[in-house]
Amino acid sequence: MNERAALPLLLVALGGNALLRAGEEGTLAQQFANLAAPVRQLARMARDYRLLITHGNGPQVGNLLLQQESCGEVPRLPLEILVAQTQGQIGYMIESSLDAAFMAEGIADPPPLVSLLSYVVVDAADPAFAHPSKPIGPFYPERPAANFPLIETPRGWRRVVASPEPRTIVEKREIRLLTAQGFIVICCGGGGIPVVREARGFQGIDAVIDKDLASARLAEEVGVELFLIATDVPGAALDFAGPRQRFLRKISAAEARSHLRAGQFAPGSMAPKVEACLRFLAGGGRRALICAVADLEAAVAGDAGTEIVRDES
Amino acid sequence: MNERAALPLLLVALGGNALLRAGEEGTLAQQFANLAAPVRQLARMARDYRLLITHGNGPQVGNLLLQQESCGEVPRLPLEILVAQTQGQIGYMIESSLDAAFMAEGIADPPPLVSLLSYVVVDAADPAFAHPSKPIGPFYPERPAANFPLIETPRGWRRVVASPEPRTIVEKREIRLLTAQGFIVICCGGGGIPVVREARGFQGIDAVIDKDLASARLAEEVGVELFLIATDVPGAALDFAGPRQRFLRKISAAEARSHLRAGQFAPGSMAPKVEACLRFLAGGGRRALICAVADLEAAVAGDAGTEIVRDES
Repeated sequence: MNERAALPLLLVALGGNALLRAGEEGTLAQQFANLAAPVRQLARMARDYRLLITHGNGPQVGNLLLQQESCGEVPRLPLEILVAQTQGQIGYMIESSLDAAFMAEGIADPPPLVSLLSYVVVDAADPAFAHPSKPIGPFYPERPAANFPLIETPRGWRRVVASPEPRTIVEKREIRLLTAQGFIVICCGGGGIPVVREARGFQGIDAVIDKDLASARLAEEVGVELFLIATDVPGAALDFAGPRQRFLRKISAAEARSHLRAGQFAPGSMAPKVEACLRFLAGGGRRALICAVADLEAAVAGDAGTEIVRDES
Repeated sequence: MNERAALPLLLVALGGNALLRAGEEGTLAQQFANLAAPVRQLARMARDYRLLITHGNGPQVGNLLLQQESCGEVPRLPLEILVAQTQGQIGYMIESSLDAAFMAEGIADPPPLVSLLSYVVVDAADPAFAHPSKPIGPFYPERPAANFPLIETPRGWRRVVASPEPRTIVEKREIRLLTAQGFIVICCGGGGIPVVREARGFQGIDAVIDKDLASARLAEEVGVELFLIATDVPGAALDFAGPRQRFLRKISAAEARSHLRAGQFAPGSMAPKVEACLRFLAGGGRRALICAVADLEAAVAGDAGTEIVRDES
């Protein structure tokens, strides 16, 4: 393990689509099959990097919400508990897929691997609580009659919940100790279980933290060198889905900031990813990448995705 | 942390009733309130012991099953995924309660604390798959019309699922590394996520592993010195719930084995707890205790619960 301690620390934030792609029914077999390709790449990348893996949970937490609401027999649980449940589900799926990928790649002595539950402190006074913005759960072709806030997206209507700023990851000390020893750590699933500070502890709160912003916070608190966001498009684009769409290959933080301000990146989608990359670089990170789930290795090699580089200082 | 490495390693297996007591509706507030007392004790015990904490999930996994079955909108997930979800939920609840308890006890520099997802290998040919025996979920006063197996208990009818033998805890190497460094580790929730070995990996399987037997396996694989099962009665009793009920204070493994064979302990309830203690002692463990959730400290001090001691060899 001592040899591993010298490897650079790479954080990979897997989008929810690494498990469940738009338009799919979302059976467990589909989700495991979708995971196989990115996880095979992660297994190979573990030779050259210490790995910290985070993941989204939008579709999964939305499904749990729907199941709760259609069942009158048992007490409902608040959103932070559903986030915790998705950390259990998805963390297990990634961990067991990675174990299988190590075997498939013939890596006989893989690094120690753990999936940690993680909770993340937010501010009860965060203005996000007054303006729910994070889409979760299924797409509805028509606006449903519902007692929760909705937004219209290009793929249909979707439920939105509050998405406050991640302030600190409660388990940062533990994650630092583990990554320093070369453990592969899966954590901060679904952006982390959202809590607010109270007198002598923490109190869960109804929200879903953006997993890319939580990952940037984690990266800064743990000392990550490479930051990679894997999603369902090849990278950040100008004029996305428009007639003059063009994907960006390598841009400076200043350029990225300027495109972000100009509204080039969709709120709740590419915008928080670019924002997360910018925060990571501002916090001292070396390289920030946004790529497709299929292109993890290529992106790190500089052959795919969008790379945002630090401004010369 | 080096000082902690010399402390004895104590495994505490918390029964589902540490969160949800029979007859309660099971709101989240109730579950957190129930946890407060045992977790305060654990926080204090962490001064003298390295801690490994496991927990049950019977009521919680049963609730998830009910919610799934009443919702036709999203694909159903198999039982092992629901177990993983309960690891997320309950692991978070114990971890955050323990963080709060450290603050309440004025312990400024608590040991590092992690909740790990854990999956546990079972044998696909285990005869338990033909004879479901593990009760999960709510009690029904009348036998419900249901397409799943049921048993009648003193408190009503209850769903049963297969409960195969735990063969090995996949994360044992990681748990060993962490407990050796003095980390408090919460793991093996609900007996662990059940999987069987397949060609190049693992496959989840429909079952709920007994959490006490999984804890005994974990204890042996990790090298636990003290083994404590916390439940909803003060200890193991002869003639339980009968007119001549008497709780056992300190018995030898030979006595425990003889009472077990004589059918003194209820299957799926006290019997696997006594069996788990016997396996722990047979595997080299020092002391095995069964006590009420409220009596953790007293039991370790020798003032409460049932202690089973190794036979003289």
